[in-house]
Amino acid sequence: MDQHDDPERLARAALTYLAEPADPRLAALVRAAGAPSAVEAIREGYIPPESAPATFCANGSSREGAARALLRWQARLGELPRPGELREFARGGIRLVCPGDPEWPTQLEDLGEETPYALWLRGNGDLRFGCLRSVAVVGSRASTAYGNYVAAEISSSLASRGWTIVSGGAYGIDAAAHRGALGARGLSIAVLACGVDRPYPAGHTELMNSIAADGVVLSEWPPGRNVTRLRFLKRNRVMAALTRGTLVVEAGRRSGALNTGKHAEELRRPLMVVPGAVTSATSAGCHMMIREWEATLVTSAVEVAELLEPLSVSEARPGGPVLPRDALDPDQQAVLDALRPRRGLSTREIAMRAGLDPDTVFSCLGALAAGGFAERCEAGWRVRKATEGMPAGT
Amino acid sequence: MDQHDDPERLARAALTYLAEPADPRLAALVRAAGAPSAVEAIREGYIPPESAPATFCANGSSREGAARALLRWQARLGELPRPGELREFARGGIRLVCPGDPEWPTQLEDLGEETPYALWLRGNGDLRFGCLRSVAVVGSRASTAYGNYVAAEISSSLASRGWTIVSGGAYGIDAAAHRGALGARGLSIAVLACGVDRPYPAGHTELMNSIAADGVVLSEWPPGRNVTRLRFLKRNRVMAALTRGTLVVEAGRRSGALNTGKHAEELRRPLMVVPGAVTSATSAGCHMMIREWEATLVTSAVEVAELLEPLSVSEARPGGPVLPRDALDPDQQAVLDALRPRRGLSTREIAMRAGLDPDTVFSCLGALAAGGFAERCEAGWRVRKATEGMPAGT
Repeated sequence: MDQHDDPERLARAALTYLAEPADPRLAALVRAAGAPSAVEAIREGYIPPESAPATFCANGSSREGAARALLRWQARLGELPRPGELREFARGGIRLVCPGDPEWPTQLEDLGEETPYALWLRGNGDLRFGCLRSVAVVGSRASTAYGNYVAAEISSSLASRGWTIVSGGAYGIDAAAHRGALGARGLSIAVLACGVDRPYPAGHTELMNSIAADGVVLSEWPPGRNVTRLRFLKRNRVMAALTRGTLVVEAGRRSGALNTGKHAEELRRPLMVVPGAVTSATSAGCHMMIREWEATLVTSAVEVAELLEPLSVSEARPGGPVLPRDALDPDQQAVLDALRPRRGLSTREIAMRAGLDPDTVFSCLGALAAGGFAERCEAGWRVRKATEGMPAGT
Repeated sequence: MDQHDDPERLARAALTYLAEPADPRLAALVRAAGAPSAVEAIREGYIPPESAPATFCANGSSREGAARALLRWQARLGELPRPGELREFARGGIRLVCPGDPEWPTQLEDLGEETPYALWLRGNGDLRFGCLRSVAVVGSRASTAYGNYVAAEISSSLASRGWTIVSGGAYGIDAAAHRGALGARGLSIAVLACGVDRPYPAGHTELMNSIAADGVVLSEWPPGRNVTRLRFLKRNRVMAALTRGTLVVEAGRRSGALNTGKHAEELRRPLMVVPGAVTSATSAGCHMMIREWEATLVTSAVEVAELLEPLSVSEARPGGPVLPRDALDPDQQAVLDALRPRRGLSTREIAMRAGLDPDTVFSCLGALAAGGFAERCEAGWRVRKATEGMPAGT
């Protein structure tokens, strides 16, 4: 079956159109009935009692709420994609990634009932592998030259050590972080609060294209959707959940970056904060996080890496693999030996050369990518070349 | 007996000439024999066995050390003040304060065997009362405009809330802190690493005079002594011990302010640190203290006051008393009622007006001064007028 005809995928795609993300009623309905039946129930305007979970209509008050939710979702039935539209998106470079897909980042499930229904992706990077060693770098849109400089420096240095920089694609700190990573020929991932076909802000169209070249631009919202204030806030939980930790570079007392930081704390991921002048309003939120939330003050990429990967940092060399080769298990070593430095090989070719089954190869490639030994390329996988001539790191 | 003939005081004065402060051998000898016999032993070059404490010559190695210490102290016998020289100092405005004196700050005894032998003072302020609500504000000599601004702002704001600013009289952050306090018509205390008759640096002679006008310039070293690197380090423990907490404004990774901060931590006094740009070398030590020593990041005078006086801060108004009047006990209220707003009254006059004995009055005045209700003036004590027109605080 073509994946564009898979009922589960079609249903999850539909859910991204019908409901806003992190809708607890929809999460409960999907958990109880599955995505296809949930979409069917919305179409019919009737939830069969056996699919109505306790949280959905257990008492009078929530029965009313359920009715309202149904109406809310039904109101968007007209926005569902036409038959074949997913295929058109795919031809335009936009793919849907669902829970259970090889590219699905399972760490998103730490979000519990706020796990995305599915993600819309654009870009040549592999989301799951790209996120294995990733850090969210976020901050104020109205950043200062100081904040931009620090965001770019730290992101560049982390990227040259094999870390993927995840940010929100906005002006200010986000853009400086993405650009820092790209400048170090590293991976970057942009998590948007709108459709990936219409990146916001429009002034960042070229930046998004650069990110997509090797990395990923992704969204919980389907193509065509615009940003709203609430969507930015919901988006933030995905940045925090995708990554091993969140770094806030500059943030005023009401900056959205504080919201991302809060999500990181709730997910028990390290929250790291760059200090600044106490006379700068764009650092007031940063200082509050260090002072009141006990976020960790960091001043350099080395300090960030130490926090996120305390064991291997002493072995890390800028631009080189972040794990010693000795740390690889025999299967991983065999897969690495099977790879070639320039020409990419398909998983099947690698399996043949390494004498391993494709599933094992696939999981080894993930570990090798995460460790900075291997990378995806157009033709498949190849040895990751050490990024040379990079700054030795902030 | 004239205090200048008191053998204990004469002996303690002599000790400040003969030994460097915080000499553990001398501390042990004084503890065992008392100050006068210790000086006598140094003069004679012989320590009677009954005065030789276990730590002083218990075994061969320390007996050698004891002999060397005796020689070291004896080498300075020629520097002892001439008879009557203490009287000359007193006429020149320099007084000696010894343990047990009313003006002796008993919190110095938290230093244990490193408690100063005595302190040399210049200035019209009362050291003990001045230190009751005091904070050390220290930092780099090679400070930036940013650091100077923040040190002056926070010190000014704390001074206008009745806090005494204690610092080291040096260029840079120290000077900014002293000037901030003086600019708010607050108290300041300079702790020097040389004789109070020859303030270091010479360029700060006028600043020291301004500090001495209402506050105190003090030293462990007798008049005539110069600074040395080691003396600066020893001096730092006194700033930390005199105050309720230490605030470091700007400090490089090798700044002496880190040493003061270490003393504050060892004494279990709050260590507060102002962050700055991660690109500024003069904030690198500050960030290290927050990150590695878990010092508290602070950005304003309000945050400093909250840490040092958590209970009363909600009641504090800038420029007004820091405790609500209701918090005073009946004796303290009676003493406060007995004070006049302008003309100073002597302790005896106050005792008569309040119907209390002079000792009780004395201890109440201390509490009232500490609470910001009363202040010393030339004629004695008066009601402290709220400092008006001060900035509402950083």
